[in-house]
Amino acid sequence: MTLEELLKDQSEEAPHRFLAHISIDCVVFGFNNGIVKVLLVRMKGEDHWMLPGGYVEKHENTDDAAIRILEARSGTKKVYLQQFATFGAINRSQSFFKLSPELWHAQRFISIGYFAMVDFNQVIPVPDDFSDKCEWLPLNNLPPLAMDHRQIINKALKTLQTQLNYQPIGLDLLPEEFTLPELQKLYESILGKPLNRGNFYRKIMALDILEKQDEQRKGGAHKSPNLYRFNLQRYQEAFENGIYDRW
Amino acid sequence: MTLEELLKDQSEEAPHRFLAHISIDCVVFGFNNGIVKVLLVRMKGEDHWMLPGGYVEKHENTDDAAIRILEARSGTKKVYLQQFATFGAINRSQSFFKLSPELWHAQRFISIGYFAMVDFNQVIPVPDDFSDKCEWLPLNNLPPLAMDHRQIINKALKTLQTQLNYQPIGLDLLPEEFTLPELQKLYESILGKPLNRGNFYRKIMALDILEKQDEQRKGGAHKSPNLYRFNLQRYQEAFENGIYDRW
Repeated sequence: MTLEELLKDQSEEAPHRFLAHISIDCVVFGFNNGIVKVLLVRMKGEDHWMLPGGYVEKHENTDDAAIRILEARSGTKKVYLQQFATFGAINRSQSFFKLSPELWHAQRFISIGYFAMVDFNQVIPVPDDFSDKCEWLPLNNLPPLAMDHRQIINKALKTLQTQLNYQPIGLDLLPEEFTLPELQKLYESILGKPLNRGNFYRKIMALDILEKQDEQRKGGAHKSPNLYRFNLQRYQEAFENGIYDRW
Repeated sequence: MTLEELLKDQSEEAPHRFLAHISIDCVVFGFNNGIVKVLLVRMKGEDHWMLPGGYVEKHENTDDAAIRILEARSGTKKVYLQQFATFGAINRSQSFFKLSPELWHAQRFISIGYFAMVDFNQVIPVPDDFSDKCEWLPLNNLPPLAMDHRQIINKALKTLQTQLNYQPIGLDLLPEEFTLPELQKLYESILGKPLNRGNFYRKIMALDILEKQDEQRKGGAHKSPNLYRFNLQRYQEAFENGIYDRW
C-alpha cells in the first residue's frame, strides 16, 4: 500500500480510537561510540525524517501513550520518559505534508513532546506501517526534518543541558561499566562543548555516585583505563534531590 | 443564568470556535505583604476554587490562547507566561463536576499549564461569566481546589523552585523599588524554607543584577532600609544565560 492509501485506511478507524487534535512526539537519545544519536523514522516515499510519534487513545493517559508509542518503535519498555514541552503553533502540523484535507491526519495537532534516554545496545529500531526506515542518526549532523521536529529536538536538548546543572546523567545512556573519558564524552556531547579533564574528574567525583571497579578494560594499546559503575542508590538520590542547591 | 444554563449556551458555540479536548490552565503568582499568592476563580454555585483557564481557538497558537485567557482574568497583557507541563491523565477533567454528558465541557480535556508572575498591584482580578469570584489566595493556605488543580499548582511551584538555581526571580513580582529583606522573603516563600540573611545577601550580590538607590525608605520605626532596583539589562542577561554553569 502507498502512504496515501494507508492514511486513508487509518482515517476511518482513527476518530473512534484516538482523541482529535492531540499527538505525541518522542525524542529518543542514545549514546554510541562517543556520539549522541537520535532515533528517527522516514515515511514511505518521503525524503524527510521525523520523530517517532503517534496519537492518544480515548481512554489512555498521555504518559501511557508515550510509552506505548516508544515501545512500538524501539522494542523497549523500561525507559525513562520525560515530558518536556507541548508544541501548539497554528500551522506546525500542516506546513509539511500535502495531505488531502479529508484525511484524519490533516487536522491541526498539538503535540506533547517526551524525551527518553536509552541504552543504545538495548534498542532494536522498528519502522511502523507508515515508514520504510527507523534509524539512529547523529545529533550533531541531522538531516532535514519534517514539520517542527528540528525545533522539538532542540527544545529537548536545551532542557537536558539545563538539567545537567542539577541532575546526574548517564544511567540510562551508558552500558553498565564505563570509563571516565566515556562519561566525559557524554557530558561534552550533550553540552556541545569540550570540558577540562581535571575539572570534570573533580566535579563528577564530588557527586559521589560512581564506584570504581577492580577490573580494568583490557585490550587497548595504552594503559588500561579504570572502569566505573553508577552506585544505583546514590545516583537515584542525586537524581531526585538534585546535586546542587544554590540558596 | 445558572451555571448549567451558561454551559448549555456555550456548548452550541464552542465546537465551532475551539479545538476539542484541549484546555489551558494558568497559575498566576503574585507577591504581596511578604506572601506569595495565587489567582483563583470560583464558579457560580460551586464551593471549590479553580485556576483561571479556557480553551484554544481553532486558529490560535496555544501561547496566544494563554495570553488571551490571562488578560481576561487580570486585565494585564504584559505578562511573562511560561509553559511548564501538560496534564493528560484520563479522568482529570471528569472527576469533579457532574456535567450532563451532552455538554461540550463534559468531554475529556488535556490541559496545557502555563505559569505567570505578575506585579500584584497591576492586576485587577475579573470573574468570568461562569464565576462569581476571582481573587488572590495565599499559596501556603489554599482552599480545596477543583479537579487536579492543586497538582497543577504544585508542579508550577516545583518548576519555579528548580529554576531559582539557574535564573533570577523578582522582576515581574516585585514593585520597581524594594528592600533586600523583601527580596529574601520572596525567595523564602517560593522555596518554602528560611534562608540565612548573610548568605542570601552575599549570593544575591554576586549575581550583579541589583542597583542600590540613593534614597532610603522613609517612615519605619527602625533604621531606614536601603532600596534596590534590578538592573534590567543584567537581569535579562542572567535570565537568558543562566546564573550558574556547573560543568
